[in-house]
Amino acid sequence: MPGHLLGGIEAGGTKFVLAVGPAPDCITARHTIPTRTPEATLAEAAAWFAAQGGVAALGIGSFGPVELDRASPQWGFITATPKAGWSHCDLAGALGRALGGVPVGFDTDVNAAALAEYAQSDARGGSLAYLTIGTGIGGGLVLDGRPVHGIAHPEIGHIYPRRHPDDAGFAGNCPVHGDCLEGLASGPAIIARWGASLSELLQDHAAHAIIADYIAQCCHTLFASVAVGEVVIGGGVAQTPGLIARVAQRAAELDAGYLPGGTRHTIRAPRLGLDSGITGALMLAAEAAAGA
Amino acid sequence: MPGHLLGGIEAGGTKFVLAVGPAPDCITARHTIPTRTPEATLAEAAAWFAAQGGVAALGIGSFGPVELDRASPQWGFITATPKAGWSHCDLAGALGRALGGVPVGFDTDVNAAALAEYAQSDARGGSLAYLTIGTGIGGGLVLDGRPVHGIAHPEIGHIYPRRHPDDAGFAGNCPVHGDCLEGLASGPAIIARWGASLSELLQDHAAHAIIADYIAQCCHTLFASVAVGEVVIGGGVAQTPGLIARVAQRAAELDAGYLPGGTRHTIRAPRLGLDSGITGALMLAAEAAAGA
Ligand SMILES: Nc1ncnc2c1ncn2[C@@H]1O[C@H](COP(=O)(O)OP(=O)(O)O)[C@@H](O)[C@H]1O
Ligand SMILES: Nc1ncnc2c1ncn2[C@@H]1O[C@H](COP(=O)(O)OP(=O)(O)O)[C@@H](O)[C@H]1O
Ligand SMILES: [Zn+2]
Ligand SMILES: [Zn+2]
Repeated sequence: MPGHLLGGIEAGGTKFVLAVGPAPDCITARHTIPTRTPEATLAEAAAWFAAQGGVAALGIGSFGPVELDRASPQWGFITATPKAGWSHCDLAGALGRALGGVPVGFDTDVNAAALAEYAQSDARGGSLAYLTIGTGIGGGLVLDGRPVHGIAHPEIGHIYPRRHPDDAGFAGNCPVHGDCLEGLASGPAIIARWGASLSELLQDHAAHAIIADYIAQCCHTLFASVAVGEVVIGGGVAQTPGLIARVAQRAAELDAGYLPGGTRHTIRAPRLGLDSGITGALMLAAEAAAGA
Repeated sequence: MPGHLLGGIEAGGTKFVLAVGPAPDCITARHTIPTRTPEATLAEAAAWFAAQGGVAALGIGSFGPVELDRASPQWGFITATPKAGWSHCDLAGALGRALGGVPVGFDTDVNAAALAEYAQSDARGGSLAYLTIGTGIGGGLVLDGRPVHGIAHPEIGHIYPRRHPDDAGFAGNCPVHGDCLEGLASGPAIIARWGASLSELLQDHAAHAIIADYIAQCCHTLFASVAVGEVVIGGGVAQTPGLIARVAQRAAELDAGYLPGGTRHTIRAPRLGLDSGITGALMLAAEAAAGA
């Protein structure tokens, strides 16, 4: 039952955020449901969109890993995920059919957020990264105006930062890599070594400089390797007061004035607050509607 | 005096490689000149192209930093370089005028090489990085089929790899960062701590594993941050027998089977040997000719 509105889904491992609106920057209704089995979750999502009068197109920003290759028969699927029941789930196909065969746009949750923050940016250059520092660490990229897929999609949470000298004792908690970025700087990695979230630790606790250093190394890597102009940092850990300013200062130290374009480097919180992902999902819907 | 052929220049800090041909994969004449002052070098280059009968379009892959923003009045310039006399040199403009106002394509030397190796690739996905490990370390990127510029251009030689445990004593020789990738793994950095090039050190010398580890970290960073499928490694240091195989093995260890698309990761020598850069320059000329 197609309708007039755009529909968006921010599909996460713990919750799905659903929204409809006439345009990406105008959300007229939203709803959050817990992530259960694919069958139960997708049925509940489809029922909510139907109750809004249906949608003309759907956009999905999803947790990964996902298949983004339009030429693949698995396009729009979640691929091999440790999340029980969700491997090889045809997210885009099942939802598009359930909503009456509407066109579907599909990308990672972080690419969707990057697209939305990119649309908000007043920077020159058109290249932006969106990082989320939460239960995990992920990154989306818009380069020269387009979301980056590559042969799959970025997984920048699993680069290896240089160890901070005051953080030598911790092995890191990434089940695959140990002390990759996610294993050192995600919310659970912070709690694992200091027993509290970063916001709960006093501002002079060494953890603030340590975590800022790891995130700054990631920003420097993005500035150096693909010359983004902006890095937008969201997620629970990034809510820590003062963290983003510490990251920006440390990243400037790491660059040391070297990179071309460095005077235009910006590290900032999301302009859209917690709505970057769902807004990006609605942008994917608008794109799908235009392409259909 | 415009002619029928494509002209290409690989503009380096020590030499300019010049070539002409009817197509990028068909070089019919080439010539190498030493890099002196801009005036002398550009005049000598223009005279050589004139002696070939002129060109219909020119492509330049240049040492950096360069201005790649088409909207900038400095497009086609070398910007602020430590190379004496070359700062703010209007490479593209001066050469285009000297050759009779022909259209000019312009990018970094490493993006040109990446474009040429990309055209040679039979990989799926359309995303490739070209690294040169020589006097310096640089990288070019083709993502989803297009060269990456971002707000300036990649300078991946200046990311910070994790220090190898058997390499603790060396401070690194990057004048700006000390122990960034270039400061640890470039040809001069190798000679600074072991007194010889990597090829001259016995195969069981620790240097081979150390340098392979740093380059592998760079490859892993590219796989994780932008999901390239292939990393092509050229430059003098990459001529070391066995090095690329060591890099590939170490990068696979760093990934540990995690990244989506990892089974399709390839690390290899340039298919075009020493001709990636000049071939890419001719591709830029062909593009400029088509766009004119
Ligand atoms: N205000 C806060 N300050 C610091 N850390 C926080 C804050 N809120 C949440 N976190 C941490 O962020 C993680 C959750 O990240 P979040 O982005 O909210 O969820 P998810 O990544 O699961 O989508 C938890 O590990 C939590 O400890
Ligand atoms: N066959 C080789 N094996 C190992 N190292 C080499 C070899 N040839 C050159 N090098 C090193 O590479 C550096 C020069 O790199 P090259 O790519 O040839 O030039 P450039 O980077 O200046 O264009 C020097 O430091 C040299 O020691
Ligand atoms: Zn990891
Ligand atoms: Zn450096």
